[in-house]
Amino acid sequence: MDINKIEPIARLINEFSKLPAVGKKTAERYAYYIIRTSEENARNLATSIMDVKSKITFCEICGNYTDSSPCKICRDRSAKIICVVKEPKDAMAIEKTGEFKGQYHILHGTINPISGIGPNDIRIKELLDRISNNETEEVILATNPDVEGEATALYIAKLLKPLQIKVSRIAQGISIGSELEYADEVTLSRALHDRKEI
Amino acid sequence: MDINKIEPIARLINEFSKLPAVGKKTAERYAYYIIRTSEENARNLATSIMDVKSKITFCEICGNYTDSSPCKICRDRSAKIICVVKEPKDAMAIEKTGEFKGQYHILHGTINPISGIGPNDIRIKELLDRISNNETEEVILATNPDVEGEATALYIAKLLKPLQIKVSRIAQGISIGSELEYADEVTLSRALHDRKEI
Repeated sequence: MDINKIEPIARLINEFSKLPAVGKKTAERYAYYIIRTSEENARNLATSIMDVKSKITFCEICGNYTDSSPCKICRDRSAKIICVVKEPKDAMAIEKTGEFKGQYHILHGTINPISGIGPNDIRIKELLDRISNNETEEVILATNPDVEGEATALYIAKLLKPLQIKVSRIAQGISIGSELEYADEVTLSRALHDRKEI
Repeated sequence: MDINKIEPIARLINEFSKLPAVGKKTAERYAYYIIRTSEENARNLATSIMDVKSKITFCEICGNYTDSSPCKICRDRSAKIICVVKEPKDAMAIEKTGEFKGQYHILHGTINPISGIGPNDIRIKELLDRISNNETEEVILATNPDVEGEATALYIAKLLKPLQIKVSRIAQGISIGSELEYADEVTLSRALHDRKEI
């Protein structure tokens, strides 16, 4: 009784295996769970999926996911400091540190000429519009420390220079708790170069 | 913007994290996928989940999952040899080898006095009923090679003895492709004991 030949199960396995990093084996395990779990559990999962699709939109200000626009952060927090990130999950990662109390700006991508993504394809114009309010004093560029992230940060920094706003870039160096021995050379030389007096 | 504080997303993450071996981090990744994927993809997943719940039942003969009872294997194959397994996924594992052309019998559990599971709690009576047809010539006991699986196999073997049916147990020994060095002692001594002349 190859479970994969029973049509409704085969279809479910196929759908599950579209989830990120889910292979055939894992999709089968999930399908088994659905078969065995209560009717209620299965229905909750199915309706949650549809709920997210129908209720989640983008915040008209920061571009993050929200169920009501503007999002809670754009409503409740000051725009004095705006942290610019590539994707919603980057904002979530920063939010989890509990260190940042300002607003976010989600670019939804980074400049990448090879993939044909230029400055007009990401939310840079929206950032400039936001800053023209005169409330913002600092913009933190928190794009990833890779080629596209660096290029995007530099591009935005150049645009913001004439506006007399403080522009900063998140620090790059050795990860906390890691060992020098295993750091890659680029990171290590950057860490040396950006050394701080103590 | 902690994504976990947006209610529909928080609920979806919670539902995803009920899947086997899915933690918070993975559930978040799945939720992000749902947010970003097409409406159609999300709907397909949701409806496949509900379809499986409404269409999948147990085969009245072998007890395996099926969308029409009796299942395809019980309809199409001879009952000359019946392979007894603990769970549907065990039947699937054997089916994948392509070596077995008989029918299955799913016990839906093994005898486990500690958990209060006795012979009457698993599908042993159904197995005896099936065999009374006089068609069956051999029963292969393919429960797991653990304490409960062994006990269950022995129990069933004893019940079948008076019926003059050939009863066999799957071979236990060193896994193909593994190394002696890493085999556990119990497996290794069993492999020595059950050695075959070549």
